[in-house]
Amino acid sequence: MAKIVTFGEIMLRLKPEGYLRFFQNDKMEATFGGGEANVAVSLANFGMDTAFVTKLPDHDIGESAVRSLAYFGVDTSKISRGGDRVGIYYLETGASQRPSKVIYDRAGSSIASAGKGDFDWEDIFNGAEWFHFTGITPALGENVAELCEEACAEAKKQGLTVSCDLNFRKKLWSSEEACRVMGTLMRYVDVCIANEEDAEKVFGIKAEGTDVTGGKLNHDGYVSVARQLKERFGFKYVAVTLRTSISASDNKWAAMLSAENDTYFSKQYDVRIVDRVGGGDSFGAGLIYGLYSGMKDKDALEFAVAASCLKHSIEGDFNRVSVDEVKTLAEGDGSGRVQR
Amino acid sequence: MAKIVTFGEIMLRLKPEGYLRFFQNDKMEATFGGGEANVAVSLANFGMDTAFVTKLPDHDIGESAVRSLAYFGVDTSKISRGGDRVGIYYLETGASQRPSKVIYDRAGSSIASAGKGDFDWEDIFNGAEWFHFTGITPALGENVAELCEEACAEAKKQGLTVSCDLNFRKKLWSSEEACRVMGTLMRYVDVCIANEEDAEKVFGIKAEGTDVTGGKLNHDGYVSVARQLKERFGFKYVAVTLRTSISASDNKWAAMLSAENDTYFSKQYDVRIVDRVGGGDSFGAGLIYGLYSGMKDKDALEFAVAASCLKHSIEGDFNRVSVDEVKTLAEGDGSGRVQR
Amino acid sequence: MAKIVTFGEIMLRLKPEGYLRFFQNDKMEATFGGGEANVAVSLANFGMDTAFVTKLPDHDIGESAVRSLAYFGVDTSKISRGGDRVGIYYLETGASQRPSKVIYDRAGSSIASAGKGDFDWEDIFNGAEWFHFTGITPALGENVAELCEEACAEAKKQGLTVSCDLNFRKKLWSSEEACRVMGTLMRYVDVCIANEEDAEKVFGIKAEGTDVTGGKLNHDGYVSVARQLKERFGFKYVAVTLRTSISASDNKWAAMLSAENDTYFSKQYDVRIVDRVGGGDSFGAGLIYGLYSGMKDKDALEFAVAASCLKHSIEGDFNRVSVDEVKTLAEGDGSGRVQR
Amino acid sequence: MAKIVTFGEIMLRLKPEGYLRFFQNDKMEATFGGGEANVAVSLANFGMDTAFVTKLPDHDIGESAVRSLAYFGVDTSKISRGGDRVGIYYLETGASQRPSKVIYDRAGSSIASAGKGDFDWEDIFNGAEWFHFTGITPALGENVAELCEEACAEAKKQGLTVSCDLNFRKKLWSSEEACRVMGTLMRYVDVCIANEEDAEKVFGIKAEGTDVTGGKLNHDGYVSVARQLKERFGFKYVAVTLRTSISASDNKWAAMLSAENDTYFSKQYDVRIVDRVGGGDSFGAGLIYGLYSGMKDKDALEFAVAASCLKHSIEGDFNRVSVDEVKTLAEGDGSGRVQR
Amino acid sequence: MAKIVTFGEIMLRLKPEGYLRFFQNDKMEATFGGGEANVAVSLANFGMDTAFVTKLPDHDIGESAVRSLAYFGVDTSKISRGGDRVGIYYLETGASQRPSKVIYDRAGSSIASAGKGDFDWEDIFNGAEWFHFTGITPALGENVAELCEEACAEAKKQGLTVSCDLNFRKKLWSSEEACRVMGTLMRYVDVCIANEEDAEKVFGIKAEGTDVTGGKLNHDGYVSVARQLKERFGFKYVAVTLRTSISASDNKWAAMLSAENDTYFSKQYDVRIVDRVGGGDSFGAGLIYGLYSGMKDKDALEFAVAASCLKHSIEGDFNRVSVDEVKTLAEGDGSGRVQR
Amino acid sequence: MAKIVTFGEIMLRLKPEGYLRFFQNDKMEATFGGGEANVAVSLANFGMDTAFVTKLPDHDIGESAVRSLAYFGVDTSKISRGGDRVGIYYLETGASQRPSKVIYDRAGSSIASAGKGDFDWEDIFNGAEWFHFTGITPALGENVAELCEEACAEAKKQGLTVSCDLNFRKKLWSSEEACRVMGTLMRYVDVCIANEEDAEKVFGIKAEGTDVTGGKLNHDGYVSVARQLKERFGFKYVAVTLRTSISASDNKWAAMLSAENDTYFSKQYDVRIVDRVGGGDSFGAGLIYGLYSGMKDKDALEFAVAASCLKHSIEGDFNRVSVDEVKTLAEGDGSGRVQR
Repeated sequence: MAKIVTFGEIMLRLKPEGYLRFFQNDKMEATFGGGEANVAVSLANFGMDTAFVTKLPDHDIGESAVRSLAYFGVDTSKISRGGDRVGIYYLETGASQRPSKVIYDRAGSSIASAGKGDFDWEDIFNGAEWFHFTGITPALGENVAELCEEACAEAKKQGLTVSCDLNFRKKLWSSEEACRVMGTLMRYVDVCIANEEDAEKVFGIKAEGTDVTGGKLNHDGYVSVARQLKERFGFKYVAVTLRTSISASDNKWAAMLSAENDTYFSKQYDVRIVDRVGGGDSFGAGLIYGLYSGMKDKDALEFAVAASCLKHSIEGDFNRVSVDEVKTLAEGDGSGRVQR
Repeated sequence: MAKIVTFGEIMLRLKPEGYLRFFQNDKMEATFGGGEANVAVSLANFGMDTAFVTKLPDHDIGESAVRSLAYFGVDTSKISRGGDRVGIYYLETGASQRPSKVIYDRAGSSIASAGKGDFDWEDIFNGAEWFHFTGITPALGENVAELCEEACAEAKKQGLTVSCDLNFRKKLWSSEEACRVMGTLMRYVDVCIANEEDAEKVFGIKAEGTDVTGGKLNHDGYVSVARQLKERFGFKYVAVTLRTSISASDNKWAAMLSAENDTYFSKQYDVRIVDRVGGGDSFGAGLIYGLYSGMKDKDALEFAVAASCLKHSIEGDFNRVSVDEVKTLAEGDGSGRVQR
Repeated sequence: MAKIVTFGEIMLRLKPEGYLRFFQNDKMEATFGGGEANVAVSLANFGMDTAFVTKLPDHDIGESAVRSLAYFGVDTSKISRGGDRVGIYYLETGASQRPSKVIYDRAGSSIASAGKGDFDWEDIFNGAEWFHFTGITPALGENVAELCEEACAEAKKQGLTVSCDLNFRKKLWSSEEACRVMGTLMRYVDVCIANEEDAEKVFGIKAEGTDVTGGKLNHDGYVSVARQLKERFGFKYVAVTLRTSISASDNKWAAMLSAENDTYFSKQYDVRIVDRVGGGDSFGAGLIYGLYSGMKDKDALEFAVAASCLKHSIEGDFNRVSVDEVKTLAEGDGSGRVQR
Repeated sequence: MAKIVTFGEIMLRLKPEGYLRFFQNDKMEATFGGGEANVAVSLANFGMDTAFVTKLPDHDIGESAVRSLAYFGVDTSKISRGGDRVGIYYLETGASQRPSKVIYDRAGSSIASAGKGDFDWEDIFNGAEWFHFTGITPALGENVAELCEEACAEAKKQGLTVSCDLNFRKKLWSSEEACRVMGTLMRYVDVCIANEEDAEKVFGIKAEGTDVTGGKLNHDGYVSVARQLKERFGFKYVAVTLRTSISASDNKWAAMLSAENDTYFSKQYDVRIVDRVGGGDSFGAGLIYGLYSGMKDKDALEFAVAASCLKHSIEGDFNRVSVDEVKTLAEGDGSGRVQR
Repeated sequence: MAKIVTFGEIMLRLKPEGYLRFFQNDKMEATFGGGEANVAVSLANFGMDTAFVTKLPDHDIGESAVRSLAYFGVDTSKISRGGDRVGIYYLETGASQRPSKVIYDRAGSSIASAGKGDFDWEDIFNGAEWFHFTGITPALGENVAELCEEACAEAKKQGLTVSCDLNFRKKLWSSEEACRVMGTLMRYVDVCIANEEDAEKVFGIKAEGTDVTGGKLNHDGYVSVARQLKERFGFKYVAVTLRTSISASDNKWAAMLSAENDTYFSKQYDVRIVDRVGGGDSFGAGLIYGLYSGMKDKDALEFAVAASCLKHSIEGDFNRVSVDEVKTLAEGDGSGRVQR
Repeated sequence: MAKIVTFGEIMLRLKPEGYLRFFQNDKMEATFGGGEANVAVSLANFGMDTAFVTKLPDHDIGESAVRSLAYFGVDTSKISRGGDRVGIYYLETGASQRPSKVIYDRAGSSIASAGKGDFDWEDIFNGAEWFHFTGITPALGENVAELCEEACAEAKKQGLTVSCDLNFRKKLWSSEEACRVMGTLMRYVDVCIANEEDAEKVFGIKAEGTDVTGGKLNHDGYVSVARQLKERFGFKYVAVTLRTSISASDNKWAAMLSAENDTYFSKQYDVRIVDRVGGGDSFGAGLIYGLYSGMKDKDALEFAVAASCLKHSIEGDFNRVSVDEVKTLAEGDGSGRVQR
């Protein structure tokens, strides 16, 4: 009986070694990852009883995806098996002025083809307290969007807290489609996670004075975005991640949390990037952990930012850090001295 | 202006290192291959002016597939660009009693979605003398089967020799579909390559007294299969590969050629297998080379068998051997003494 | 509530890549394994609800050992955490006339230092039906031998079937010690697994006419060994694995099962070895699966031998095969033809 | 009929993995590279019809060098085959205060032993519009210097633009030899590429106020160098690359172009270095592309600097970037945000 | 007859590749290292005749440790063979805010179990001029502390200079134990190497105004620590390394030398870290080299700091640099320009 | 003062991983090896005090070659430093019917350019008892042949036993040159090692009835070759290795020793080949060890054959086996059972 449930797609991630460009040699790192799966693994690593729900084919590749989650103690018993393929994303890691590059090959995956009979939400949420999904899941198709709504409705019925990371992906759907579908789903959501682009691209909500490409960020703008989101959808919390991309090797990383009574801006970290994919997901997981475990809002935010700061130093989609490690950083030791 | 043209799919081949099972570690060998591409590379390695025709997406993965062919000097100028994805096959290399395992993930590939406008066969065949395809290509879909027929018709119109390897794949179509489509295409074919199972599974033509699983092979049976094929479709040549599978590590390998006036059985090789995928394709390429370059039928057969024998010692789909290397083996030196 | 419980040590296995000698280069394969853990993983791969019980340190290396089991769905919830270190064994893979080599560095491991309070056998066996251990576990020390007896006594009290693989290790104890301790433990055992050397080295029970180094094996001798074992300890089943070591690269592999009413000799397999470590454990797991799932005695034996035959083709201690794969081989297809 | 032709040596590049020192382990990355070959590959990646001219041995190592170029679509049909060996350079990648290290082993290579009969320049330049070489080529020996002059003369006769990167290598010749030979060749050159050291070391032309080791660079000095070069040799363009080496890990990178009517200084990039070998060549290729494709002088310069900035983030001698990628950076997005 | 002798433990160092966390994949880099062994290798690389003294098991792993030293020309003839195991340390390389992590598994190693009969110090020091050890060696156990004192006494008797790096390890002993044992040993020591934490943690000697975690360092404080150490133990030299840890990726690195008549502070280097383990040891080796070879005190300090600065750019415990390389840096060229 | 001295070339050996063809991927195994160096390493592994004499460049690649020998305890103090390059050989490992392939790139190496002043043979042989070289060394050039004769003359003067492996390399010299030079050198030789081809190709001495390619070997023929060699040159011992090459994967391996009073044929081993390069050298080393250490002739032969049998199972040129391992095999245990 998992306490936290996440729902979405887990993909095969194919990445050339190190900084090599695609097919620069004949080896690929082959691991698994995907927004909601990443959140589930993070939470399991924080010691939370977490289940990941998806659909995966009934062959060795699908089974390997399942095992990649079981390895961390994620509850995989609610995963539906069937369908044709595991979605894939190709990832090339950038450096300096050369950006990382993602090529998706996820059409036709088992979860993208899933339907009503695949999930028994009443059973899945039995005993659970939190449900998390991201904007990627409903973007997989109308059928999956319906599954999301089913899940949300049942979650609210059973009294779960619902969180959603907007996670807009322009390759999956248009802003119009996103706005329509996400608008409906937001009615069930208590905790909304976003970056400035998401809010604008999904709901047309803008923060003035911010130029993402140029790397300038504007605090007031984010407060304004959060306020608008809360007004439109009634969220209890809106969290916005604040990335300043100096280059593919160096980013600044911080976040804002608009809580019920106050808005907090976290510390900002100067990050030397090992792997930034999954950075947003690790923030989401940190925030869920913080709020779920009863931290003060400000502490939950700092925990979330520290967790995702550490993620940037770890290869792969999954954030392989413990609560102790996150707290050590959140409480101020980012000196990186050897721990013997 | 390539002299030999092959048409089909080139896929991304994802294989764990060595004898590892799928995802036993987090690395995959990522190379490219596929029946007709393998034939094209073999022929280029034999010094032939060869073009490979397919459709590939206009992104880095598609481009890498193109380059993997250009590396060997295959003419890639007739490849159509567009569509969504590069087909994939996952391969696990067996050993001893554990068989190799292939999982296909090729649905929705660019070539499987190709249509009439993608190829200008009149231009493609301009100056060419030989056209080769396999039974996999038309099995990709009705649209591709039509492209095959278009190609065959134009090839015959321009006076090319046409060869086809039956290559039945039960995951792609049923015997009924295969029989209907391939029956039509065979009218254009001069040189038919098969193994006993292909003939039976596609056309219901059986050779008595052969038990593939048990490893017994029967010469008379193969003569009978070849005769039936020639009678039904008017082939000039029928070649049948004869594999005796002792285990995933050891095979015996030979072939038969039913030529216009006589039938020949080749030497049989005891093969320690490094990688048997592409073994049949390397035979086809060897036979095309032999016949095209004017060898005697018997010599062409021995060349083809020696070429494919060597393929079994080479990693990857592609047969990386020269005419000299094949001839050395075909003429009798299989001792494997170091060449200094 | 696992149905099958195994108890013992899981070690870090450090092996140079391929056939390299120790430290021939600066890389090691670092995986986990150990007799009873190997059995647990095999059983989990056969779909059985299996728990592994041991003690492991409360640091990242210990946690990684736990995860290596959770990956396969083994229940790790009964593992005690604490103590100082994960035991290690260094393995060098032999080839041809050069034998594989094992160097143990397991003294002082957490399980070797475990004591009474570490395991609540009543709870552990709640709902279970089978308990398995090997002669390695009690050889770790008097304290661990006592834990074994505690476990055995509780297992019998709760009505579990108890199986034991004698697995004599001369580096861990003398024959005299082994005889004394194992003699006591055998009173609880229903199914005894051994090879000829084990029976002789532990209990002084000999089979005439067998010369292990020379590779000759003698059926009557094994029947005699099994009979003597059953007479002395009252086992329901005695299984003996029969390895003929031609070289480090080639073995013959078979087994004998002395059941309640009859004695069976299995098929013999000619094995090209990829990794023979864990071969005996995979036999034990196969036998437990066969007997537990209600196969006929003869079929259980053939299943066990086929499972362990396949293990020899797989890298690592763990047998990564499914019931279907084992049955395909046990039912006669060892041809190793590609499965597409 | 390639439009652009480059002439020089392609060597085997042997590099330990990552930041390892020579033979710190027993693996080497084995790729190919060399000034003019690097330019040819860059141009092919920009979609230009480019041929590389050299001489390579008629064995597998020579053939592999050819294929490494064909992979990118470089026209290799004009490469002469014969001679004894492929030149080698050993490369160790530095980090922080530890510099990268190059050890050449190129004496006796096929191209260094090439002579009059090896190249038919009239045929090679048939249909071409641009010829490029560097100061390394004539430094290989008097015979190769003569080949350079032959090539230059024929190029001018056929109306090609000629570009040359001075590329002084003190291990290959003295400043005196370089001055004599290069002085002669410069008469044919339209576009001269250099860094400050080259101009001084080859022609004794100095820029005041610049201390390369200390990292200070002086704009006026470079203008002065360019002016002197143009006055002495009548170049239409002089381009000078401006590297500020902070450490082996961090450089600043910019360039200057002295065009017919004006002198331009590019943006300066802060570069985190992955591999700086080939940085100058990628600048040359970018400049040729820009000028050849009709960009404005300033834009050509920015294109060249952006192209070479990206090269520093790519492993290997070859610049694996597209025109689109270069333009995105040249037009201002160096933020390194993930491209999805 | 080695001139310089170091005494301590050499361990197996197991490190995941690159920045991977423990067991993130199934490969480990397996090399050897340890404080005094690192010093011995550094000195051998500086061309000094150096012996390393330890005890290692008489099996392949022990032999490999010996060979890892012989590779660099370290005299291994005084190594005692016997005992049970080679100590191990697991190392995970940090990045950005994530610290490196060390897990020791060294209890029960051969050297930790060594006793009186294992070393003939009179013979070992025959012809030697310098003896070096660190605080780790006596911390291995009372028996090893006694061996240290025996060695020190004999060294002084034979007139050797004795140096010691305090190297406090809280996992090995308490401050109280360290103070007692080290206090005794310091009587023999001429050159004491420490960092601020060592002096405080071993002897309770504090430098005011320094906050290691926060990264601030205070020169006066270090002068005070050195003075106190010299007063208490009569050292001729006290050297203190000054690390400012900005993150696991970036450190500032400098040192102070309190010589007989004056105190010197070195240049400070901004270091991009490849591997900082062994940084302190490489400083010690540089200082020994400088003082032993008769450099001026200030030059010896700069040599030591430059040597250890370079170590941070090199994988593994051992500092693989030559005297020339160190001098180039110490004399001012840290620009990292390629050396061709 | 080494007891055994070998003289020759040590080369860089560049080999693609596993069974890959040249440049099939971009990695090479980069190790060192060469006939006489291989013998020196073998002998050092047998515990003999052995020196290797050669000339190597005074740069990092040369130093790495030196260290590769020092690693095994070979005395490298007599190696001359200077010259331009380390010779190279490219090696591709064959399998099944595909032979291994060697491409030499050794012209211009330091040892091939060595001259009179490079070696002080009187000093080198001071205290030595055995000198070994092979036919490759004099084949490097007239200058090196002269060095060989100098060495041989001094060795005889100081009373050393001299052994020579004929080792004919057709790429280095013609049979005529070899016959002339080797004929002269043989006057100094006591122990001659050859294979049938060597004797014929160098001295025109034939054994009837043997067909190397076909794999048939004829005992009488070898006796005849040995007798002829002894008659012509007065050798005390002639040893001939007997390889039956079934394929690149499987060989039979044995040898003959014609001693002073009798001729012995060894056991024959069926070898699964991991790496057969250096097989002959490991035989030579085994024979030298056996004869030098006073074994009976027959035992020395069996030791030599067992040693070289084991070499075939080991990657790299060097035979990494101990005397114990060889004796275990020579005395009959080739079963390859795991050694725990």
